[in-house]
Amino acid sequence: MLNKFYIEEHVKNALKEDISFEDITTDNLTGENDKMTCTLNTREDGVFCGRDVFEVVFALLSQEVKIKFFVKDGDLIKKGDKLAEIEGPARAILTGERTALNYIQRMSGIATVSKKYQDAISEYNVRMVDTRKNTPNFRIFEKYAVKTGCGNVHRFNLSDCAMIKDNHVKFAGSITKAVEKLRKSISHAHKIEVECDTLEQVKEAVGCGVDIIMLDNMSCDMMREAVKIIDHKAIVEASGRVNIDTLKEIASTGVDVISSSAIVAKAPTLDLGLD
Amino acid sequence: MLNKFYIEEHVKNALKEDISFEDITTDNLTGENDKMTCTLNTREDGVFCGRDVFEVVFALLSQEVKIKFFVKDGDLIKKGDKLAEIEGPARAILTGERTALNYIQRMSGIATVSKKYQDAISEYNVRMVDTRKNTPNFRIFEKYAVKTGCGNVHRFNLSDCAMIKDNHVKFAGSITKAVEKLRKSISHAHKIEVECDTLEQVKEAVGCGVDIIMLDNMSCDMMREAVKIIDHKAIVEASGRVNIDTLKEIASTGVDVISSSAIVAKAPTLDLGLD
Amino acid sequence: MLNKFYIEEHVKNALKEDISFEDITTDNLTGENDKMTCTLNTREDGVFCGRDVFEVVFALLSQEVKIKFFVKDGDLIKKGDKLAEIEGPARAILTGERTALNYIQRMSGIATVSKKYQDAISEYNVRMVDTRKNTPNFRIFEKYAVKTGCGNVHRFNLSDCAMIKDNHVKFAGSITKAVEKLRKSISHAHKIEVECDTLEQVKEAVGCGVDIIMLDNMSCDMMREAVKIIDHKAIVEASGRVNIDTLKEIASTGVDVISSSAIVAKAPTLDLGLD
Amino acid sequence: MLNKFYIEEHVKNALKEDISFEDITTDNLTGENDKMTCTLNTREDGVFCGRDVFEVVFALLSQEVKIKFFVKDGDLIKKGDKLAEIEGPARAILTGERTALNYIQRMSGIATVSKKYQDAISEYNVRMVDTRKNTPNFRIFEKYAVKTGCGNVHRFNLSDCAMIKDNHVKFAGSITKAVEKLRKSISHAHKIEVECDTLEQVKEAVGCGVDIIMLDNMSCDMMREAVKIIDHKAIVEASGRVNIDTLKEIASTGVDVISSSAIVAKAPTLDLGLD
Amino acid sequence: MLNKFYIEEHVKNALKEDISFEDITTDNLTGENDKMTCTLNTREDGVFCGRDVFEVVFALLSQEVKIKFFVKDGDLIKKGDKLAEIEGPARAILTGERTALNYIQRMSGIATVSKKYQDAISEYNVRMVDTRKNTPNFRIFEKYAVKTGCGNVHRFNLSDCAMIKDNHVKFAGSITKAVEKLRKSISHAHKIEVECDTLEQVKEAVGCGVDIIMLDNMSCDMMREAVKIIDHKAIVEASGRVNIDTLKEIASTGVDVISSSAIVAKAPTLDLGLD
Amino acid sequence: MLNKFYIEEHVKNALKEDISFEDITTDNLTGENDKMTCTLNTREDGVFCGRDVFEVVFALLSQEVKIKFFVKDGDLIKKGDKLAEIEGPARAILTGERTALNYIQRMSGIATVSKKYQDAISEYNVRMVDTRKNTPNFRIFEKYAVKTGCGNVHRFNLSDCAMIKDNHVKFAGSITKAVEKLRKSISHAHKIEVECDTLEQVKEAVGCGVDIIMLDNMSCDMMREAVKIIDHKAIVEASGRVNIDTLKEIASTGVDVISSSAIVAKAPTLDLGLD
Repeated sequence: MLNKFYIEEHVKNALKEDISFEDITTDNLTGENDKMTCTLNTREDGVFCGRDVFEVVFALLSQEVKIKFFVKDGDLIKKGDKLAEIEGPARAILTGERTALNYIQRMSGIATVSKKYQDAISEYNVRMVDTRKNTPNFRIFEKYAVKTGCGNVHRFNLSDCAMIKDNHVKFAGSITKAVEKLRKSISHAHKIEVECDTLEQVKEAVGCGVDIIMLDNMSCDMMREAVKIIDHKAIVEASGRVNIDTLKEIASTGVDVISSSAIVAKAPTLDLGLD
Repeated sequence: MLNKFYIEEHVKNALKEDISFEDITTDNLTGENDKMTCTLNTREDGVFCGRDVFEVVFALLSQEVKIKFFVKDGDLIKKGDKLAEIEGPARAILTGERTALNYIQRMSGIATVSKKYQDAISEYNVRMVDTRKNTPNFRIFEKYAVKTGCGNVHRFNLSDCAMIKDNHVKFAGSITKAVEKLRKSISHAHKIEVECDTLEQVKEAVGCGVDIIMLDNMSCDMMREAVKIIDHKAIVEASGRVNIDTLKEIASTGVDVISSSAIVAKAPTLDLGLD
Repeated sequence: MLNKFYIEEHVKNALKEDISFEDITTDNLTGENDKMTCTLNTREDGVFCGRDVFEVVFALLSQEVKIKFFVKDGDLIKKGDKLAEIEGPARAILTGERTALNYIQRMSGIATVSKKYQDAISEYNVRMVDTRKNTPNFRIFEKYAVKTGCGNVHRFNLSDCAMIKDNHVKFAGSITKAVEKLRKSISHAHKIEVECDTLEQVKEAVGCGVDIIMLDNMSCDMMREAVKIIDHKAIVEASGRVNIDTLKEIASTGVDVISSSAIVAKAPTLDLGLD
Repeated sequence: MLNKFYIEEHVKNALKEDISFEDITTDNLTGENDKMTCTLNTREDGVFCGRDVFEVVFALLSQEVKIKFFVKDGDLIKKGDKLAEIEGPARAILTGERTALNYIQRMSGIATVSKKYQDAISEYNVRMVDTRKNTPNFRIFEKYAVKTGCGNVHRFNLSDCAMIKDNHVKFAGSITKAVEKLRKSISHAHKIEVECDTLEQVKEAVGCGVDIIMLDNMSCDMMREAVKIIDHKAIVEASGRVNIDTLKEIASTGVDVISSSAIVAKAPTLDLGLD
Repeated sequence: MLNKFYIEEHVKNALKEDISFEDITTDNLTGENDKMTCTLNTREDGVFCGRDVFEVVFALLSQEVKIKFFVKDGDLIKKGDKLAEIEGPARAILTGERTALNYIQRMSGIATVSKKYQDAISEYNVRMVDTRKNTPNFRIFEKYAVKTGCGNVHRFNLSDCAMIKDNHVKFAGSITKAVEKLRKSISHAHKIEVECDTLEQVKEAVGCGVDIIMLDNMSCDMMREAVKIIDHKAIVEASGRVNIDTLKEIASTGVDVISSSAIVAKAPTLDLGLD
Repeated sequence: MLNKFYIEEHVKNALKEDISFEDITTDNLTGENDKMTCTLNTREDGVFCGRDVFEVVFALLSQEVKIKFFVKDGDLIKKGDKLAEIEGPARAILTGERTALNYIQRMSGIATVSKKYQDAISEYNVRMVDTRKNTPNFRIFEKYAVKTGCGNVHRFNLSDCAMIKDNHVKFAGSITKAVEKLRKSISHAHKIEVECDTLEQVKEAVGCGVDIIMLDNMSCDMMREAVKIIDHKAIVEASGRVNIDTLKEIASTGVDVISSSAIVAKAPTLDLGLD
């Protein structure tokens, strides 16, 4: 998902944001030829994510920085683990440190929470996915981190899957009319998902033959009912009130997918550091 | 801090990220002339932040969207409060909703935690500030949110204040040598801060007449000792192991500033929504 | 599909490309206050497309240019029709003329051919769509023109629908294995399409329950056979050897969608001009 | 004309346009270490154009892709010819294929038509050139393709040659006044061209000593007359009603240059493919 | 020459360069509703240049800033003259002041020197022009300032006029061969200029019928000789050793154009200020 | 200060500015395989500056250009000195020559004047620095050149040091109130500087404990008085009426820093050339 040419552009901007004119401390206290070695360590248990981005940060500052990774994206890491060895010009390493960590701490934080959620429902054949609640202009890194932790993501943006919400229904007249209208006008390559609050809506959506039915903020009992009504005629997605405590019961209702913004929007960063 | 022309550029990119080719649902289910009205509400208590950004998102999609705010940045908001009324073209409102919320949920989340930290130490004359642990290419929004919540921030980036860390000391030879070198080479308009782990280092730093001394990961007793040694000859900043539980005791040691990445990096988003 | 803020950015670059330093002719032969009026006319029959883009070009050069359109995107236009009246500063109109026409001539050319193709199969319930054979960095305008002419488009890019081609099958082992692998790894919000050259492949694809089956370069007889095999269990898309002569017979085979790059890649521009 | 750093920027944007978040098919069906080999072939006769651009597309996706070309820009290619061998990581090749082809199919299409036009008038000492009717933000590739096919181009943009059209004449008062005004105000490094509809205008333009006289939409008899009047005192350019059928007679009138938008705006893409 | 949309982009970057995160002084010492009035004055005699740019700077910071200009580009201004009145939000005015002045001080400085050079040779029919010795990424502002002061400029860049220098001659074999080669390969819309060091070269260049002959670093006697040889068969441009002292004698030799980098590269800024 | 990734972006834009479509002379007169060798020489005495930028220009045009430098930034160079040998493809060298020289001529020009100013006051312990009077979007190169020549610079922009000017004082009420307000609201990592016109103001500023006091346009006697008043309680900066003649007397007054825009805004370029 993370093409080099794309990462490079994002990282260049991040470095400009952090360096601005000059790292006045490092540039004045280290010489051009000073070298150093350090290790990337984790101070918390979690899931590692962001190896390529980490490498790009230092490569942009100096082509002489050598990084040897002992983990790859998705690996479980334990507090105290040495994740990588970095050696090269002191200036590049000291100047790039914070930016490099900022990427992987956030990405690993999201991957860690994502995996925790997916693992919590491992006995069910249910996939945990995210939503579009992302940090603006950082989505690709967050989606990648979710995929690293959960194995899957929801749609990327407003272009790649139609999602009929209550307001859309109001403008279209009914779920049925909305689906008919979309069928005519969206690409045959795109799916239609309908957000349902009631079992009546679920029935109407099933009748329209939509691809995905989202059960929005329903109780577990109601979801169980909905799953029966849908009866494999659409993918069933549960959403709303999802947290680590409610997750397992939701998974037990028979839904196919659980989506939640919590795995991104509420995820704390993972504490990684250079020593 | 948030100039319109700068916000606009950031928001345009965020809208491109989320819209890509088209909001296939909204564009096909609403007409060009469909109008709607809705309100921005909060579903949690917190500190509101991001009003200008919220307005820019919709202004970029349609100049006909009218927003009437009942709060301004920094206001305390209570679960259920109506924060704003939005009316205008349905397309602009439905397409921009998620992006607009993504900005203000994250900014308000950070402002909320920031204020909580600052409030916790209100009986002391100590200022709570952030660090450079930011989401890459989102720093200005995060710094602004911290200032909204705490009243203050730490340095913006590597250009505007020298910060001597242990690695810099190694390359320079000693704290004293590092400070001398920096004095000669950085602008007279910039301050020098030194990170100290031991009281010996604190003494050396005081002797050099640096502007700020950071007490890194010290116990509260050690900090009290350091404050005495420094004796108002430098600004004293505490850092490390800062959380809502340890905060008050740290503030009681007599330090001037407490810095922590937690108010940004660990802050969950605040739950705001359009209804 | 064409958001103002996105068009503006594209048009600014196009104006820089065409103006570079200065329109040395117009800037030196007209005064700042010279005004002019002209009309946009069509010199060929066709489908008009690009009204918003046309307006943005002149708006970027001067906010005083007034344009009154007599047509909207998708309207049939006849040789000699007056499409719009433009009045305003001579400099803006003369300098922007070529760039404005370059957009709408190409967009209207594509819309015209697209409509011609869709009309040719109007007696069948078949939709004509494009492919990803676009002019680089001009896709959104081309996709929009296809939708204006045909009513529909294929996927936008590599993100929004999986398309299994022969090379993918080779790496995965078989169509079945490819589909299984994709099912596990792509979002539940995305469809899977398989490109098939033989009826054997069609059968295998049907067996996997894919969303769309593309019949690639098949004879009409073979396509009819395939349609029977598929029997409404997937959307059937015909591709290859599509042109205005073969189109109707292909449509008669019972396929749901016909995709062809011809409507974009081979479309001549439509001759529109300012008089 | 096509500097590497410029191509790279254009191609990066084109790849972002086509990949967006991820090539969901290829990334999930091929492994990081999967390799493949394929050939670039032509399915039509024509003139090849775009070698450097083709290479840049894959180089941006992976530095391990090796391309061995058997042709260079401007070479005649015959249906079935193998133009290049590509080997390297399957991911880079499959993901980049469409974007790479999109560039060279369009560039080769234009080069092919351009050469056909130039060849049609090979017995005359007349050069065929293009106009400014280009696809916005794709001009440099189109101008380069015209030069590859015809050997020459017209002006690049509004900065590099003054071109007095009827509207300019109206604002200046007369051709003579327009030329006088331009002489004073444009750089001595730039030429002046005048568009003439009548022989009277031609006479006036010759009298002013302009560099180039464009005969706009004149009959061949009228052009012959104009050529006599001009008598080598200016470069004579024929424009309007140029197509492959009228071309030779126009060339026979004694003009020096024939300009037409047809070689770009009406050129179909050339059918090239990877096998 | 300076289109609004182009200036805006340049100025946005300049504001980002100067503001970075925040104007920490102004934002904290003035209120959102504080207003102020001030005047733009000149502290030196000179030629004013940059009115549109000055306006754009403040317009980007606040649409409420009103500027009333008493001069226009090209006007002679005297020490102490009031050039404009500015009123509006204090924040926008104080924050934008330096950036706005930076543009017009440099542009007016160049316009002033340019006019001084042109005026020095006013008794001759000779035009003073600049070269390509510009500040990178600031050329359009510098070229515009030269035109404001001198009335004319040399070529804009490497695209719009061929200039054969000694190295080109070496690679081509001779001036004659170089001209022949260029004649075949450059657009008929572009001129050819040849740089000559000797009268032999001048004769050769005249024989080739080039458009412009540059006399490079010749003595005035030699230039007089060259002018005779050329005898109006080409535009004669003098270059090298041009300064305010040598200028008049050079102009007296009969050349048509004098080009010098001094009017840009050596021009001091003009002292303008807000009071 | 000049990170490679940042220089590259700036230089790419500068090359686009100068090349636009094509170096029509060089591309048509030299072959792809033509090579050349040349030297970079100085035609004036001065301080060299811009080595890395010079290298980036050619590296962007061809990776085969080899440059061997005999000087480094900050070295004194004498008229006639050979500074570097360049060899490689003729096209890259001839096309990049002007852009490469434009950077280093301006940077070396500023470094030269900066050093002249600093040297003029070498007997005093006073540092010469610049201001924010820069060429828009070229500041980092100018700041770097000042540092190369003087050893130091003033603040980078509006973010990194507060500077209270007369207008700020008016809005705040008094210097004391302004300082109090800033103390509360700016980061503890930033300094406060106050511009003073009178000795009364100096006394007030000292009383507030500000970091830097700027003596604005004071006579040398007054400055001497101010230095006494300040008595090492703040850094003393002299500004206004600074030129090479007044410099030494100002330095003799006991100030710590002298700031002047002259070293940038009035600096002529240094005459460097390729032979």
